[in-house]
Order: sequence, then structure tokens, then C-alpha cells
Amino acid sequence: MNENLKKYVVEIIGTFFLVFTVASAVLMAGDGVIAPISIGFALMIMVYAGGHISGGHYNPAVSLAAAIRGALEWKQILPYWISQAIGAAVAVLLASRFAEIPETAAAPEAITALVVGEFLFTFALCYVVLQVATSKKTEGNSYYGFAIGATVTVGAFAVGGILCPGAFNPAVALGLNLMHAVTCKAACIIAATNLVAGACAAITYKFVNSEE
Amino acid sequence: MNENLKKYVVEIIGTFFLVFTVASAVLMAGDGVIAPISIGFALMIMVYAGGHISGGHYNPAVSLAAAIRGALEWKQILPYWISQAIGAAVAVLLASRFAEIPETAAAPEAITALVVGEFLFTFALCYVVLQVATSKKTEGNSYYGFAIGATVTVGAFAVGGILCPGAFNPAVALGLNLMHAVTCKAACIIAATNLVAGACAAITYKFVNSEE
Amino acid sequence: MNENLKKYVVEIIGTFFLVFTVASAVLMAGDGVIAPISIGFALMIMVYAGGHISGGHYNPAVSLAAAIRGALEWKQILPYWISQAIGAAVAVLLASRFAEIPETAAAPEAITALVVGEFLFTFALCYVVLQVATSKKTEGNSYYGFAIGATVTVGAFAVGGILCPGAFNPAVALGLNLMHAVTCKAACIIAATNLVAGACAAITYKFVNSEE
Amino acid sequence: MNENLKKYVVEIIGTFFLVFTVASAVLMAGDGVIAPISIGFALMIMVYAGGHISGGHYNPAVSLAAAIRGALEWKQILPYWISQAIGAAVAVLLASRFAEIPETAAAPEAITALVVGEFLFTFALCYVVLQVATSKKTEGNSYYGFAIGATVTVGAFAVGGILCPGAFNPAVALGLNLMHAVTCKAACIIAATNLVAGACAAITYKFVNSEE
Repeated sequence: MNENLKKYVVEIIGTFFLVFTVASAVLMAGDGVIAPISIGFALMIMVYAGGHISGGHYNPAVSLAAAIRGALEWKQILPYWISQAIGAAVAVLLASRFAEIPETAAAPEAITALVVGEFLFTFALCYVVLQVATSKKTEGNSYYGFAIGATVTVGAFAVGGILCPGAFNPAVALGLNLMHAVTCKAACIIAATNLVAGACAAITYKFVNSEE
Repeated sequence: MNENLKKYVVEIIGTFFLVFTVASAVLMAGDGVIAPISIGFALMIMVYAGGHISGGHYNPAVSLAAAIRGALEWKQILPYWISQAIGAAVAVLLASRFAEIPETAAAPEAITALVVGEFLFTFALCYVVLQVATSKKTEGNSYYGFAIGATVTVGAFAVGGILCPGAFNPAVALGLNLMHAVTCKAACIIAATNLVAGACAAITYKFVNSEE
Repeated sequence: MNENLKKYVVEIIGTFFLVFTVASAVLMAGDGVIAPISIGFALMIMVYAGGHISGGHYNPAVSLAAAIRGALEWKQILPYWISQAIGAAVAVLLASRFAEIPETAAAPEAITALVVGEFLFTFALCYVVLQVATSKKTEGNSYYGFAIGATVTVGAFAVGGILCPGAFNPAVALGLNLMHAVTCKAACIIAATNLVAGACAAITYKFVNSEE
Repeated sequence: MNENLKKYVVEIIGTFFLVFTVASAVLMAGDGVIAPISIGFALMIMVYAGGHISGGHYNPAVSLAAAIRGALEWKQILPYWISQAIGAAVAVLLASRFAEIPETAAAPEAITALVVGEFLFTFALCYVVLQVATSKKTEGNSYYGFAIGATVTVGAFAVGGILCPGAFNPAVALGLNLMHAVTCKAACIIAATNLVAGACAAITYKFVNSEE
């Protein structure tokens, strides 16, 4: 139990800093040129800081992919998701003390674009996580956090703000909804898409790494 | 056969995400300041994700260089090239659903500049790949993906959009042609230049690493 | 004694280059878009250059966190702090020869924002330092300097210039005061907040890593 | 002899790509926001590609520092310098085919600023090189190329174009003179300053690492 509590604390801390950085970019940052890099770095530093304790997911879709791949016990899924939701909610609650949150969120213009964008890079993110952080062939490497964080940077650049809000993470989708950057309906579509993408990535991982 | 199929799937996935990121930069991204970084990161994450399965080429010129150096069986060249072309084509097909593709591509202004730019950084890319990912002296390092991705970043900054489109990769050239960013003739010149550069890089590699 | 002197020299050199880069961004740099990246890189290079000699703190809050965690002898705290203050002061003294320093610093508008911003990312910085550079589970990794430097990049982006000056380091706070970027009172509040955040990070570290 | 020739070829290739990237930033690149990152990455990729063969200096000041530290035979200094000069000259010769080189270079406004800027970050560069690439304590690490390249990024941001041209390298100074970005006199002052800084860094290295 105590060992599990440590993992949940690490997941809360990591998700907090990830979502706080997103909230800053959405609500506060004047100059957004390096926002995709900063958000990717936020994930990277927390993966490096907590990966050896909790796995460093900070993302319910990653936790789902890890469970399907066999890198997380299924009974840990729910407490991980709750920890991640807590981290995200506290981050938005704190950020909203220092920024104006719009009254209402605009509904997404194109659901297809939203689903495609969120699917593609959540798939990429979970595929990269499983390959660099759970495969026996890449064990002991020093690049896993950088690769994982950079995937979010690439996604934020390639589809974020173009096809979709660029959450790639149901906890971030929750955060974006709490700060009225997306509607509740859009957040649910994003979160569902993220989870499906995580499951697809895990299945793809198991196929291409099947000899392990 | 099955082991080979896994490699082809990994090459398709990696080339898809690389070319999709390029397509986003060319067709969709409003703010291109960090485009060279994002495209380099896209290659990096896929090299780290798939390098231990397929070698992580995602580039016919790299596959050619690897074959000359002895890091890829010659009979794998064709299926690798086909996989990379499939990944590129699907990426452009998907991206074109969300963006306006121009009716026709403008012909390149200066063929010499195009050839020099593409040659230089495809040479650099293949030279770096062979040194960091196939040399015995650098075995087990954690920087290979970063070095490979960053080479594309440097090339995209130094000659991309200045001397040439900055493909450094026949699969990207194919993608650029499919999205009407370069003419068919230019794409062929780029692809041929890339392959020659890959061969030159492999010969250079064999000379400077000849004691191995 | 001689071994200790080497450590102090390394701390002076590292803090000098960190604070000189901050001074350049504040007093001289015309284009600040990549300032958060450059300042993070400045810390990273000095951590990689000196970490194996002095621990590569360059930050009194990190030294405090390291002492609480048991990674620095308590009697070394004072000479480390003095070395860091010397490095910061010399950096500002030199930078001020080439730039106009304003007559007086403007008082901070919101003390709460300042304290929250400085607390959050000094906590993140010290938490990351302890996890990646002092934990047995991450020993021998090659990412520690990147993770530490990138934390400052994320903080500078997320709260620097928004909630607070983004020092995350009492030595930087001293430097900012010497270049009249913050008032003396603000520098003291920042430094105190940084030290409290460092202590909180050390306690958090000890909790989540308690089996070590 | 043959082994040495390989080293010289590697030094020529690496210096060529470093100086070509600088030439592109100076003569061709429209958008210079990420120039410091691209130039740093150019050095990084060549250090990773050639470090295991030639040491990956690409810089006469680094070769001098390596010789003083005992990491390069003194009799290799001259051929290394010549190789680096060849790489730089060929890079400018090629770049000048595609860009307008100004008739004459403007004389530097402030010699003191030029000397201070060049001294500081050439010192930092050589100090970082010796620590991360020649110290026994950091042997086998994967970060050396990143740390070395990032030092040039930090220098280019902190003093490049502000106090000095940001060469930190006599071969780059030669290249800048050939493209008429600095006068001949300025290039000589820069080169001399770089060499003195390299020597100072080597002496500092030997002091703080004296137990080795």
C-alpha cells in the first residue's frame, strides 16, 4: 500500500506540472513560439524524475497502453487515472487564480479533424512510450524521457491548434475543459479517442515486438 | 517472413509520422519558426521507437547507405523502399484531407542549388546514421536518435527553403510531390541526388572506419 | 581542503555562466524567443561539465535540498552558497560593463504570484535534481543534465515573466537584484521562497524514494 | 599515416558542416530565431559522428586545449589546424556560390567587447569539451556531443551578435572573414582570443581535475 501511495504521489506531481505548463501556454503565455517545446520538456522532465518510481505515465491513455502491454497491473489503472485527474485539476485550479478563464468554451469546428489529430499523436506517444520504456531491447537507455517528451512536441506542432487542441492525454483534456479551452463534449471525445489510440498502440507494439 | 513483416510495419509507421509532420509544416502550420526542430524531432522519436526492430531508416537513401555499409541485407532494400513509399503516400493522403493542396507545383528555380543542398545534408544524414547507429565503436550509445534527427534540423535550417526543399530523403521527396510542393521532375532529381549522397556517405564511412 | 577548493571553483564557474546568460537575456538580448532554452542549456552544460566534481548545483536551493537528502555535507552548505554568490556577482559585474542597468528596479506587482511561481518551479527543479542526480535507481544515466536544465526552460516559459522573474535560484535572484531587474525586497522574497521550495522538494523526495 | 589521414578527413568533414551552417545563418537564412540552436546542433551531430575517430574537435582552440590536457599529441596540432582551415574555407567557398557576399566587412565597434565575448564562451566550450569528452570520471557518457553543441548555442545567444560575432573557434573566424562578416584584423583578434581561452580552459581543467 505504502509503495503504491508513492507511485500515486509521483503521478500527481508529474501530471500537475505537465498540465500547469499547458495551462500557462493556453491562458497566460504571450509568446507561444516555443510552447510545443516547453510542453514536451515538461513531460520529459517528469518522466525522468518519476519513471523509476511510477513508470512516469501522467496520462490515462499511457496507463491503459501499459496495462495492455503488461507493464502495469490492471488493478492499478483506476488509482493511476484518479491520481492523474487530481494532478490535472489542481494545476488548472491554481493557474486559474492568475489568469482569466473565458466564460464558455467554443465548440470544436470539425469533429473528424479533432479525432484524427488526437488519435494520430496519442498513438505515436503510446507507441514510443512502450518501445523506449518497456521493451527489453531498449532497457537501460538514457533517451526514453526525451523521446517521450519530444513526441508531444511533434504532435503539438503538427496537429495541435490545427486539427485538434493537441491534448493526446485524457488528463490534459480534463484540464483543457476546466479552463474552458474545450467544451465538455469535446473533452469527452478527445479522452475517448486518446484511450482508443493507446489501446491500438499497445496492440501494434505487441505485434511488432512479439518475440519478446 | 514474419520477422520481416514486423520490420516493414515499423518502417511504414515511422515514415508515416515523419512525412505527416513535413506535410503539416508545408500545408498547415501557421508558425514555422520551430518547423526544423519539429521535423527533426519526428525523425528522432521514430528512430528511438523502431531502431531496435527495423534499424529505423524511414528513408531509402539511408537504407541504401546501410546496405553498402553491410548493415542491411541487399534483398531487403526493395521491401524497405516500398514500405517507406507507402508510409509517405498514406501520410500525404491523410494530410490532404485537412488542407488545401495547390493545383500545380512551381518548378524549381535553380537545379544546381537544389542538387547541392540535397546532396550536402543527405550525405551528412547518412554519414551520421552510419557512425552513430552502425559503428562498433559507438555501440550502446543513447544519442543516436537525437544525432540523426538533429541532422535533419540542421539541414532544414541551413539549406531547406533556401537552396532546396530540404527533403534529404526520397520518401519525403515523393510526399512533397504528392502534396504539389515540388514538381515530379524536381522530386526525381531530389530522390536521385539523395541516393547518390547516401552512397557517397557509405563510401566515406568505410574509408574513415576501415579498421573495423 | 584542496579537494574542496576545486569544488568551489567549479561552483563559481558554473554559476558565473548561468547568471551571465540570464544577464544577457535581461539586459542585452534583442530577440528573446529562445531565452528559456538558452538559459536551460546554460545550466545543462555546466551540470554536465562540473557535476562529477562539485555535484553541479550552482544554486543555493539545490545545495540545501542536497544537504537535506544527504547528498552534500552540511558543513559544505555555507562555502557552496558563498561560491555561488561570488559567481553570480562577478557575472553581473562583467555584464554591466556592456549594458545599461536601469537606475532603480520596479517593485513586483503581485507578491502572491511571485511566491507561487518561484515556489512551483524551484520545487520542480530540486525534485528533478534529487531524482536524476542522487537516486540510486537512476545512477549512471546520461540524461541528468538535460533534465535539470530543461526544468529551468519549462519554468522560464510557464511562469517566468508571467507570475515571477523566473529565478528559481537565490544566486540568480541576487544577480537579478544587482542588475536592478528586481528590488532588494523582491530578491529576498524570491531567495527565501526558493530555499523553502528546495526543502519541500527534499522532503517529497525522501517520501517517494523512502526504500532507498 | 593512414590512421592519421582518416582523422584529418573527419576533421575536414565536421568543420565543413559547422562552418557551412554558420555561413547559411550569416548569408542566407531569413529567419534567424533558431540560428543558435541550429549551429549548436551542427557541432553536436559532427561531434557524435566523428568523436570516436578524430576526437571531433573542428576547432583549433579545442585542439590546443586537448593538447595541453594530454588528449592530443602535440605533433598532431598542425595537421588538425590545417584540416580545420580547409573545411572552413571550402564551406565558405561553396556557400558563396549561392549568396551575395558583401564587398567589405565593417570593422568591429568595440574590441574589448569582442575579446570578452569570444574569450568567455571559448573558455566555456573548451572547459566543457575537456570535462565531458576527456575526463575519466565521465567516460562512456552519451551526453558529450549535446553538452558541447549546446555550449555554442548558449554562447551564440548570450554574446553572439551582441558583444562579438560568436565564433568561439578560429576556423569559424577564418570562415567569417572569408565571407566578409568580419575584417581580417578582427578575425585575427578573435582567433588569438580563442586560442588563449582554450589554453586557460585547459589549465583550469587540470587544476579542478588534478587527482586524475
